[in-house]
Amino acid sequence: MHRSRIGVVLIDHPRDRFESSAAFWALARGSTRRADGDEPVYDSLDPIGGGIMLELQRTGEGTPARVHLDIETDDVDAEIARLVAAGATVVERQAAYAVLRDPGGLVFCVVPVQTGRDFDAHATTWN
Amino acid sequence: MHRSRIGVVLIDHPRDRFESSAAFWALARGSTRRADGDEPVYDSLDPIGGGIMLELQRTGEGTPARVHLDIETDDVDAEIARLVAAGATVVERQAAYAVLRDPGGLVFCVVPVQTGRDFDAHATTWN
Repeated sequence: MHRSRIGVVLIDHPRDRFESSAAFWALARGSTRRADGDEPVYDSLDPIGGGIMLELQRTGEGTPARVHLDIETDDVDAEIARLVAAGATVVERQAAYAVLRDPGGLVFCVVPVQTGRDFDAHATTWN
Repeated sequence: MHRSRIGVVLIDHPRDRFESSAAFWALARGSTRRADGDEPVYDSLDPIGGGIMLELQRTGEGTPARVHLDIETDDVDAEIARLVAAGATVVERQAAYAVLRDPGGLVFCVVPVQTGRDFDAHATTWN
C-alpha cells in the first residue's frame, strides 16, 4: 500500500530565458521568488491550491519552454510500477526520482514526498 | 479591482494520441473521466488541490503533447492588461478568453471563472 498525488507544477525555461520568465510568473502570481541555494536550479513561488508547489526550473539550452507535473509519493518504486502498468514509460531512473513519459510522449516525474502535511491531507492511497 | 488565480491545469494531446493518454491519466489519478458533450474537446478528471480543475484536451495534429495552465479571472480584459504589463504577449484574443505567451514563449490562457466557490476562496485580488 502506498500513496501519491500531483504535488508540484513546474514551469521550465532554458537558462537564457529564465530570468524574464521567472520575473513574469512572480508578478502573475503576486508571489515572491525563493531561490534554492547560490546556484539554484529551482525558484519557488507560493503554492497553489491544496499546497501544490509551483516551481520555476532552469533547464538546458535545448529544452523548450514547458510545464511539467511531478507526482509525489511515499514509495517511488511502487508508484513507478503502478504508472508503468497504466501505460507510462520510464525515461530515466535516478536514485531518488524518475522521469517518465505518458503514452502520448508527455514528460512527467515521480518524486519523493515534497509537501509534507498537504501530501498527507490530499494523497490517494493505492492498494 | 479584479481577481485571478491559476484555476485549470490542462494536459493536451493530439487526437490520435488522446485516448491512450487520457486512459493513462485517469488511472494515474484514480479518477473517472467526464466528457463534455458528444464530440468533446475536453475530458475532466477530478480536481486537484484547492478545486483546481484537471482537464484533458484533444488538440490538433500539429500540437505536441504538453501541459498548459489557465488563469481564471472575473475580468478577462483587466487580467490580460495586467499580464501584458508584466511581460506577456497576446497570441489570440477570442470573445471569451485569450491565448498568451510568457516572455520565454510558454503558452497559457486567460479564461473566465471556471471553479466558482473555489475561485472565491483562493483567488488573488489586484488593485
